[in-house]
Amino acid sequence: MKTIDGGICAPKGFLASGIRCGIKTSASKRDLALVFSQQPCTSAAMFTSNIVQAASVIVSREHGKTGKLRALIANSGNANACTGQAGLDAARRMTEMAAERLGLTKEEIAVASTGVIGVPMPMERIEEGMAELAAGLSCNGGDAALEAIMTTDVRKKHTAVEFSFAPRTEGQTATGLPIRIGAMTKGSGMIHPNMATMICIITTDAAISSKMLQNALRRAVSRSFNRLTVDGDMSTNDMALVMANGEAGNALIDSEGPDWETFASALDNVCITLAKAMARDGEGASRLMTVKVSGASGEEAAAILARSVAGSSLVKAACFGADANWGRVLCALGYAGVSFKPEETSVTFSSAAGSLPVFKNGEALPFSEEKAKKILLEEEIEIHAVVGNGNGEAAAWGCDLTYDYVKINGDYRS
Amino acid sequence: MKTIDGGICAPKGFLASGIRCGIKTSASKRDLALVFSQQPCTSAAMFTSNIVQAASVIVSREHGKTGKLRALIANSGNANACTGQAGLDAARRMTEMAAERLGLTKEEIAVASTGVIGVPMPMERIEEGMAELAAGLSCNGGDAALEAIMTTDVRKKHTAVEFSFAPRTEGQTATGLPIRIGAMTKGSGMIHPNMATMICIITTDAAISSKMLQNALRRAVSRSFNRLTVDGDMSTNDMALVMANGEAGNALIDSEGPDWETFASALDNVCITLAKAMARDGEGASRLMTVKVSGASGEEAAAILARSVAGSSLVKAACFGADANWGRVLCALGYAGVSFKPEETSVTFSSAAGSLPVFKNGEALPFSEEKAKKILLEEEIEIHAVVGNGNGEAAAWGCDLTYDYVKINGDYRS
Repeated sequence: MKTIDGGICAPKGFLASGIRCGIKTSASKRDLALVFSQQPCTSAAMFTSNIVQAASVIVSREHGKTGKLRALIANSGNANACTGQAGLDAARRMTEMAAERLGLTKEEIAVASTGVIGVPMPMERIEEGMAELAAGLSCNGGDAALEAIMTTDVRKKHTAVEFSFAPRTEGQTATGLPIRIGAMTKGSGMIHPNMATMICIITTDAAISSKMLQNALRRAVSRSFNRLTVDGDMSTNDMALVMANGEAGNALIDSEGPDWETFASALDNVCITLAKAMARDGEGASRLMTVKVSGASGEEAAAILARSVAGSSLVKAACFGADANWGRVLCALGYAGVSFKPEETSVTFSSAAGSLPVFKNGEALPFSEEKAKKILLEEEIEIHAVVGNGNGEAAAWGCDLTYDYVKINGDYRS
Repeated sequence: MKTIDGGICAPKGFLASGIRCGIKTSASKRDLALVFSQQPCTSAAMFTSNIVQAASVIVSREHGKTGKLRALIANSGNANACTGQAGLDAARRMTEMAAERLGLTKEEIAVASTGVIGVPMPMERIEEGMAELAAGLSCNGGDAALEAIMTTDVRKKHTAVEFSFAPRTEGQTATGLPIRIGAMTKGSGMIHPNMATMICIITTDAAISSKMLQNALRRAVSRSFNRLTVDGDMSTNDMALVMANGEAGNALIDSEGPDWETFASALDNVCITLAKAMARDGEGASRLMTVKVSGASGEEAAAILARSVAGSSLVKAACFGADANWGRVLCALGYAGVSFKPEETSVTFSSAAGSLPVFKNGEALPFSEEKAKKILLEEEIEIHAVVGNGNGEAAAWGCDLTYDYVKINGDYRS
């Protein structure tokens, strides 16, 4: 598997566009995006579990049920959340407008929104922008589409990979046939201010049934975005969508097996890359923090422990201060709600500048504070906790808690 | 019920002392405390649910099983956590030293520690200080004892109340007989840096069985400290202890009934006062935030919803910025894990400067940003969410998330 350029337009047959229609107050920023597959697709999607759900989530969930989504219209600058019936009407109207331009039914269109909440969608601006948006569709439009869904994001977060299925004796799949997955995401954490959070759009030219696609997406999200924490909050607008148009020409993947496993692993990889990019781009973050837990009773137990450490405000603040405060790591493991043996637990801090064991089998190790500082001042640090001798292993990602996080969130609306 | 002076020494027959023995590096700060009842006591205690438990928690839990604790030795400057067998030996030795000085058995003594972790207890300094500590016991020693358990606490948090049981036809209890409860606490949040957190010591001269005392403590803690959140972390050292010596002369409370209810309500009150003081003294806090939820299906559901809002980093940051960001309140209610109807939900912000409904029955209300700012710039603000028409009501307390929180926790150890 290799990383390639092109983002969501790297897979064959996907076009994208992004324009400024005037939803955002800034006069220069794009705020309306369109992603479109020239051929019919299978699709899969996952949505926020928050009880309060944005209108776009409700409508996309409805449309996604058929597993045949092949386009997305998305906007930034307005989350269309807590907007009542008018908000639902607006979200439905957005899919209708896109359907008219693309010659599709509205049920083939997903809609995503991000931005301030409780404010009516400026539908006339979107109506006015539709012609330009549709006309702008191109295989080079991925960047513009990504810009149009960004809010407090500082970095562009997108990736694409190319891989092929292994040759098999049955000869079902031609050797070396290239398959591509592209993806882009907005979000500076598991949640974003004002509830307008993670939107992840994934495209692929693999031929895969919507059921197998959903299974792969569920696993990838559980191993990536669900192990990401910036502030522990969970948005009303979270959405991850994948569309597969089969343009690569592989034999349809409609059951688990080597091809599905290859595809799902590539999807895991793409989502983990984006999850790490989101943590690194966490609001105000100066450092990416990877927490690895091994020796747990199972993968899920390890994931719960790792998330607890990555989500601890005290660990995050220590990370900001480049402080090798293993006590806070132990403490966060201790309240995760998963059983383990403190007396068999070890903790190591590491980064490009080296590796430093600080706690072993339940007891503190003497260490050089100078060396610890050097390791923890790097931009990417890793905290590895061994919590026993089980086979469970998992990673979680987070970022440090900084003055800038407080600043960004202390007054987002104004 | 009236508030009185004297803290933990307000109830009859309790003595306290606090000295500097040299555990803390500061040359001027007290770090060793003793609390003692001249008469035998019944006792009740609650401890952290963290899997990683400080040695003092393990030993106090053992000794507390009999329900006959009548003294406490406590220190700050060292949490005696993650210190292995040596730490356990040290905690046991501390209770022995106190027992020798007071003429008690070590099983009658609780021990509490707070401060840095993973560092061996400097037992020789404690041994050296014991004579002075015991000699200092007096009915005016509450303040010194409180100072000796403080770490990053800025304010002294203690209170005392006096009340009497209602006269009854049976004449079991003399009308107007004064009963007193005194209490002190350390902790600037549900957790404190380096896992050395909340220690709450409560004294009373009521005569009450240890079983009834435990029931009252459990209820009071669930309505106070368990509804308090500064950063969501949960310490290895948390402990709440109550000792009752019966010196008030009331008829023993050994079952639920009017006297138990009166006592338990007074204890609720004392613990809520301290919980609010802890939130107000949260690390770096500039504002006390009370979150009230009503209309929920029950008290526990309301408490879960209220805690979710009070614990949200985004709500806390908005509170710091005096930003009437009701969207974040809705969002935190939505991911609390308790069912409610967003379309029947209303939110009001208020303080001494006024009251401002911002969201009603699922829709945004227009409001004056100027008025909102005025209300939210007060030192104590309230967020009230009505989530339906149930009878469940609860409050939770928190504080804003400030630059100073990040500063204090970014480098606590150095």
